[in-house]
Amino acid sequence: MSARASLANGLACPAPLARHDRVQLGHGSGGRMSAALLRDHFLPRFRDAALARLGDAAVVAGAAELAISTDTFVVHPLEFPGGNIGSLAVHGTTNDLAMMGAEPRYLSCGFVLEEGLELDLLDRILDAMADAAAALDVAIVTGDTKVVERGKADGVFINTTGVGTLHADFRPAPDRARPGDAVLVSGPIGRHGIAVMARREGLAFDAEIESDSAALWPLVRRLRDALPADAVHVLRDPTRGGVASALNEIAEASGVGITLADQELPIPEPVAAACAMLGLDPLYVANEGVLLAFVAAEHADEALETMRAHPLGAHARRIGTVGDEHPGMVVLRTGMGGSRVVDMLPGEQLPRIC
Amino acid sequence: MSARASLANGLACPAPLARHDRVQLGHGSGGRMSAALLRDHFLPRFRDAALARLGDAAVVAGAAELAISTDTFVVHPLEFPGGNIGSLAVHGTTNDLAMMGAEPRYLSCGFVLEEGLELDLLDRILDAMADAAAALDVAIVTGDTKVVERGKADGVFINTTGVGTLHADFRPAPDRARPGDAVLVSGPIGRHGIAVMARREGLAFDAEIESDSAALWPLVRRLRDALPADAVHVLRDPTRGGVASALNEIAEASGVGITLADQELPIPEPVAAACAMLGLDPLYVANEGVLLAFVAAEHADEALETMRAHPLGAHARRIGTVGDEHPGMVVLRTGMGGSRVVDMLPGEQLPRIC
Repeated sequence: MSARASLANGLACPAPLARHDRVQLGHGSGGRMSAALLRDHFLPRFRDAALARLGDAAVVAGAAELAISTDTFVVHPLEFPGGNIGSLAVHGTTNDLAMMGAEPRYLSCGFVLEEGLELDLLDRILDAMADAAAALDVAIVTGDTKVVERGKADGVFINTTGVGTLHADFRPAPDRARPGDAVLVSGPIGRHGIAVMARREGLAFDAEIESDSAALWPLVRRLRDALPADAVHVLRDPTRGGVASALNEIAEASGVGITLADQELPIPEPVAAACAMLGLDPLYVANEGVLLAFVAAEHADEALETMRAHPLGAHARRIGTVGDEHPGMVVLRTGMGGSRVVDMLPGEQLPRIC
Repeated sequence: MSARASLANGLACPAPLARHDRVQLGHGSGGRMSAALLRDHFLPRFRDAALARLGDAAVVAGAAELAISTDTFVVHPLEFPGGNIGSLAVHGTTNDLAMMGAEPRYLSCGFVLEEGLELDLLDRILDAMADAAAALDVAIVTGDTKVVERGKADGVFINTTGVGTLHADFRPAPDRARPGDAVLVSGPIGRHGIAVMARREGLAFDAEIESDSAALWPLVRRLRDALPADAVHVLRDPTRGGVASALNEIAEASGVGITLADQELPIPEPVAAACAMLGLDPLYVANEGVLLAFVAAEHADEALETMRAHPLGAHARRIGTVGDEHPGMVVLRTGMGGSRVVDMLPGEQLPRIC
């Protein structure tokens, strides 16, 4: 943490600091209140040796090639069914590494705290971060906290930056989709965006929809280990902008056309109902624990079986095919024999879902 | 950028997007407006090949040992004499790497943009980031942008996370100060905090005070190359909390006492005058282009000469000595023969200076 802990020693004998229930501006000072915030809230949860040394930077073992990814999380509300901004900040960034085929190893975290934030809420967020990182065996190695005045942020924003190590032969990339590839999805879509939206707007549906927020690396590692090195061409987690935006990006980057089968899309009934009520298209709703995989056709069944053997991929299915017609475009074929172009949205469907 | 550019192609033929002067919520959507923001504002300035590929993460060459550091910048105002939040975000994080003896190599950047931010101002910030990174030969390899509603942030916050490579023998660290070490400072102190404060509060002094914001790696590299491997024990940039906090942290981490000579402290006259007027102690005012070096006594002169041969260290001087008395404490000796303890501040002296 660059707000470093310099714990008061006996000689200096400073007056004890007042106990606080909420974040104060002084917690961002770099002085003794900053040190107390670190000591009482961050360090007990993030126990990595590199972090505990509190230098200006963490020193860690490297590798010949690295993947680096960054994401800032501004989700509102901070807690939602299935997670909170802390678990999301670990899942989101490590998933981005996993989509490059990289094993997530290290995370940094940068916090912007709004004056007045409840420290109990901060603790729940930090607990969720620590749990998510521990489950993945990822080390939170360095961090930073800033405090801004009330009304100059919105509770807490968290940046996580991840460093991962790469396997020599396993290099999925958005420009590697090829005609003939099968397009697979690891699970039901649309849950994260709807879960956050419902909590934010105080909407009640017949069934509570939980975010799918989860770490995808264990699923990716299985695909890497089970299939021939070159079978998996593209991996992508369809977050902001949903499945539609992710597929458009891949179609564009690879110069291919993608055709989806409407009736194969795994849209949970409660998500479909909520989308119908809210006027949203589930293809554009964010996911945080689902991946799209473009796999060479001859390995598609093997990839599906591999995914289905893991809880995160239990409901994996094939949703489409890559072709060389309509390059750069995504087309949805309906059960009635019709088809429509699935374009990128120009602007915002659901703001602040990640 | 995880808000990826999927540039409209001829076939899809989307309607042209409206031109904007200010950031809109839709710029954070992950859709076509996000792509346009990237294409028109970020990518022309940050031209790294890894970034231009726009995958979920950047893939870069690694090393056996890495240093990782993160910082989120919330400085207010966004522009100040001597820099802006963009140059500061590059200097601050790469300086943290340099203080560990690491050569800064890669930067990620995460932006939180407030709806309504002027795009011209954003462009100036991005220009300053790009220039600062290019001057250091550091690659901005991956990034992320989020947009929050007006009133939920304050213009722009920037997280930068840096990855650096380490030299086997050069490992300054805050717990390596030893009795007998000379305490050196590379230049005049107190300028950054006062420059920001003056701009924020609309204060005019006789002489405008410019921030010292600068990249310290070139100075550190010279120290590394000119001195025996083990001569430099500690390096630290006294940012938030100033020289006093940095020295307290080192005294604590190393279990030593530090004695400063009041008359040796390089406090520029305009800074001293501004501090007197504002009731601030320059020892607690942030610097962003100054380093403290703890050097074995027999190499202190050599270290000073080395620093003075570089523009950033032209006014380097020795300000104190490490002893084994009063461990964990920093004591200031005045010209009159008196002395006082220089403690850490409990809370905030100047909020939001970085």
